Amino acid sequence: MTSATVSAPVIAIDVMGGDAGLADVMAAAEIASERYPKLRFRLHGPEARITAELANCPRLAKCATIVHTDDVVLGTDKPSQALRRSRTSSMGMAIQAVKDGEAHAAVSAGNTGALMAMALFALRTMPGIDRPALAALLPTLKNDSVVLDLGANTECDAENLVQFAVMGAVFARTVLGLDRPRVALLNIGEEELKGTDEIKDAAALLRGASLPMHFEGFVEGDKIGQGNVDVIVTDGFSGNIALKTAEGTGKLVTGLLAKAFETSWLTRLGYLLSRGALRALRAHLDPNAHNGAVFLGLNGIVVKSHGSANVRGIANAIGVAHDLIVGRVNERIAEDMANFSAHRAPAVEAAGA
Amino acid sequence: MTSATVSAPVIAIDVMGGDAGLADVMAAAEIASERYPKLRFRLHGPEARITAELANCPRLAKCATIVHTDDVVLGTDKPSQALRRSRTSSMGMAIQAVKDGEAHAAVSAGNTGALMAMALFALRTMPGIDRPALAALLPTLKNDSVVLDLGANTECDAENLVQFAVMGAVFARTVLGLDRPRVALLNIGEEELKGTDEIKDAAALLRGASLPMHFEGFVEGDKIGQGNVDVIVTDGFSGNIALKTAEGTGKLVTGLLAKAFETSWLTRLGYLLSRGALRALRAHLDPNAHNGAVFLGLNGIVVKSHGSANVRGIANAIGVAHDLIVGRVNERIAEDMANFSAHRAPAVEAAGA
Repeated sequence: MTSATVSAPVIAIDVMGGDAGLADVMAAAEIASERYPKLRFRLHGPEARITAELANCPRLAKCATIVHTDDVVLGTDKPSQALRRSRTSSMGMAIQAVKDGEAHAAVSAGNTGALMAMALFALRTMPGIDRPALAALLPTLKNDSVVLDLGANTECDAENLVQFAVMGAVFARTVLGLDRPRVALLNIGEEELKGTDEIKDAAALLRGASLPMHFEGFVEGDKIGQGNVDVIVTDGFSGNIALKTAEGTGKLVTGLLAKAFETSWLTRLGYLLSRGALRALRAHLDPNAHNGAVFLGLNGIVVKSHGSANVRGIANAIGVAHDLIVGRVNERIAEDMANFSAHRAPAVEAAGA
Repeated sequence: MTSATVSAPVIAIDVMGGDAGLADVMAAAEIASERYPKLRFRLHGPEARITAELANCPRLAKCATIVHTDDVVLGTDKPSQALRRSRTSSMGMAIQAVKDGEAHAAVSAGNTGALMAMALFALRTMPGIDRPALAALLPTLKNDSVVLDLGANTECDAENLVQFAVMGAVFARTVLGLDRPRVALLNIGEEELKGTDEIKDAAALLRGASLPMHFEGFVEGDKIGQGNVDVIVTDGFSGNIALKTAEGTGKLVTGLLAKAFETSWLTRLGYLLSRGALRALRAHLDPNAHNGAVFLGLNGIVVKSHGSANVRGIANAIGVAHDLIVGRVNERIAEDMANFSAHRAPAVEAAGA
């Protein structure tokens, strides 16, 4: 579909993905249809159950088409098993709808490996992008930051990292509404000499480029939570480690906090008095508020909702898909990559040739 | 020095390292001399200032020898600059004392890169160990966990990771007092197929080995804070990212918490009632309680106290050095590596040959 049609965006939903189940996915689509009145939906899954549930989703019922299938990719399926069902499963058909121009984006809360494999196989990478990256938003002391890659690529070269930087910056412009996002490479030190050759080469390429971003050099793991950078670029191995360590530490501290409040009746009273504010703290860190990881770099938009997201979380993931469609994310990535390639430092080009 | 002399352990202290300054480093040694009455100290630094300060450290004065030097490695010095002052600087002389058998361990709060370079150059790696690793303790919901490598090696092969696992397990046995520590490799998934070839090969080697540890396979970043594993093994790049991300997230959550308590007079009162318990939470997470990163795998013990550690933190780092000496950490590593080499799976040995 061309950008001319974006005034009436269509999202293909895999209603069978994730732990939440069909009713929750549809309740989330109902919320999204209220937030974005122009959105239309294709609901991929078992027709009888979808029809029955639409009785609880009056707005969605008016803007949804049902595409029937009984075939579901399970959480335990290997990507290779899922690939064989690209045209029969609810997840595969949602992606296929994007490929065939029947939808602008696909959203699934299902098996991440299967979704990545099917999306890459069906949609292929965009011109100028060698590998897709998984990008998501992370809470910080200030505004959310974009982090990519979060696990699609365990090893990356300098060109991959530059492409991730371009894609992440476009994501920040589109979803966070920033003009010139601050972009940095995740590294084990801030000095130019630190890190692997891939990271140092990527930094040199980004320093020499004229892209709609402020390239800030390197950022260390302890700065991720501070929000002084809008886009954090890394290979998928380190990105996954960083994201999950942040999740785990968040749980550690809030777990210790819960224990601390239970030590005496005094601290329990303290908790009661503070709980409104503590609820706001929890909401700030709630993964559901930041739900919707995006596979960037494909010929089509694919959003992965977290498997354990609740209704509100899935609705936020649909919102991310909406923003990416309306913000023409792929056209902007293509523009920036073309611009980067046209103006890249000749010495580096020669070395890369 | 041989293990026969460990009944009177000697620690060489670089009194000039770190932000704390000479008085704090010496106050820390005073605390350590109280905790470990058999310890003796070599204090490397400017004699006049040390002598003056010893007036405030009556116990230390009785068990310390001063080794004068005015030369100090600065935080801004490059490792190459520091190396040239291996025999003149307080840091270099403390390491040299270990090499010359005049001390069992060196402790410095100075420039990490310089300390690593000088320690490796002077002490060299132990037989069976290809590269030293930087190990430290991390707080969890349960007991502390050992994490290594934390930045000494940005890229590691399977053999390096196996050696780190052996060294980390000995560290946990020596410092945490565990019989058979649970050891896992940090990875981006728990399935056997996940991760880089290096990690998968290391897992195969550890599964086939009979070492004094429970090898638990892979652990993801979100499990680091749970304390279900005693030793987490990783390359220095990912280890550094994980450690610093954990630090940053801890600060993020406690920062948001402080904000939360300031929202109204009710929450301020809540804070007042809970502050005893919250202080305990802070103490649990305080880096000073876990201070003392160790360079494992050298012919000698070198402990790095965090540059921003306070007196109590530096005293803890000296305590770690004490435990490693008394626990004969290097002899145990040598035993385990010899045992591993003698019994390693023949197929893997053939592949490695």
